[in-house]
Amino acid sequence: MPNNYDGLVWREEERKEVYKCRVFSVYESLCRSPDKKRMGVFMALDAADWTIVAPVLEKDGRRFFVMVRQWRHGAQELSLEFPGGVLEADEDSSQAALRELEEETAYTAQKITKLGEMSPNPAIMNNRVHFFLAEDLSPLPSQHLDEDEFVDMELVPIEEVMENMGKKPYTHALMGTALALWRQNHEAPPH
Amino acid sequence: MPNNYDGLVWREEERKEVYKCRVFSVYESLCRSPDKKRMGVFMALDAADWTIVAPVLEKDGRRFFVMVRQWRHGAQELSLEFPGGVLEADEDSSQAALRELEEETAYTAQKITKLGEMSPNPAIMNNRVHFFLAEDLSPLPSQHLDEDEFVDMELVPIEEVMENMGKKPYTHALMGTALALWRQNHEAPPH
Repeated sequence: MPNNYDGLVWREEERKEVYKCRVFSVYESLCRSPDKKRMGVFMALDAADWTIVAPVLEKDGRRFFVMVRQWRHGAQELSLEFPGGVLEADEDSSQAALRELEEETAYTAQKITKLGEMSPNPAIMNNRVHFFLAEDLSPLPSQHLDEDEFVDMELVPIEEVMENMGKKPYTHALMGTALALWRQNHEAPPH
Repeated sequence: MPNNYDGLVWREEERKEVYKCRVFSVYESLCRSPDKKRMGVFMALDAADWTIVAPVLEKDGRRFFVMVRQWRHGAQELSLEFPGGVLEADEDSSQAALRELEEETAYTAQKITKLGEMSPNPAIMNNRVHFFLAEDLSPLPSQHLDEDEFVDMELVPIEEVMENMGKKPYTHALMGTALALWRQNHEAPPH
């Protein structure tokens, strides 16, 4: 296997914003090919980082994920997910994870552990998604939702999520990523 | 738990395209809130569906994933991934999975099994990503890459991917999803 990847690396020479809204902007990235022979124009989105947090609640001898059911405007469907959202300007990713957990689920956590940081879509997005585990949970008086947020909190047995990821209502692909990272950190290594 | 989710469902009343390029278009979705009291404007991307295929190769008594290393223009980094790509207009998702496997890795497969279909990002994208397993692999003479594709094929032991998802170079979040679905289909259910 090669240990030098120069033959794969493109060099960005120019970047032009072509569209902007409050959620993201779109830019053209003009890049020189690895063999230097041609230029390519690639479209991508500039967006703030996101956080996704898998909260584990122990109750009556069972383990549950604390999840949220909400309408998703891109897919035009309901989705049952781990809580999460966009990092605010002054936040680090673990602060954002705790804030989103509290606002969306009305639980807080004593313990927040980073599970990983990935690109939600490295082909067309320049941001990162930060995955966390939340433990030692305790209830708060209520959710704190924005006026355009309608979110149900649900306790879902961990086995149910592990068996049904990829089927409705577990259709948000990045929740599958969070589950993979949680399993990687909480199960014996494969043999 | 509620079994009626009317209180979460938004109704789209109008959709306006605001930007278009060859990879996607951006639209505003004007929606009425679940309580009917207000309108919201949500931004989303219209894009073709994608496929991702996890190819498993048995060799010398070990199991490997057939993976591809390539430059990703959004993240501006190299990423080691399962093969995949955009569905062409006349393709179903399993045809696209086999085509991408053949073009990017120079392997073909006798057996293609669907692992799941999800939304890559239901908040801001309206497309789906179709996950497959490819088995009974055999080599082809060569890759068939577009002139702007520079892709290395690598055989990676399955355990290595399972232990390192989320760390460089395994930073493409949707590959974590593929791994979660593969594990779900190929390991005994949790207890």
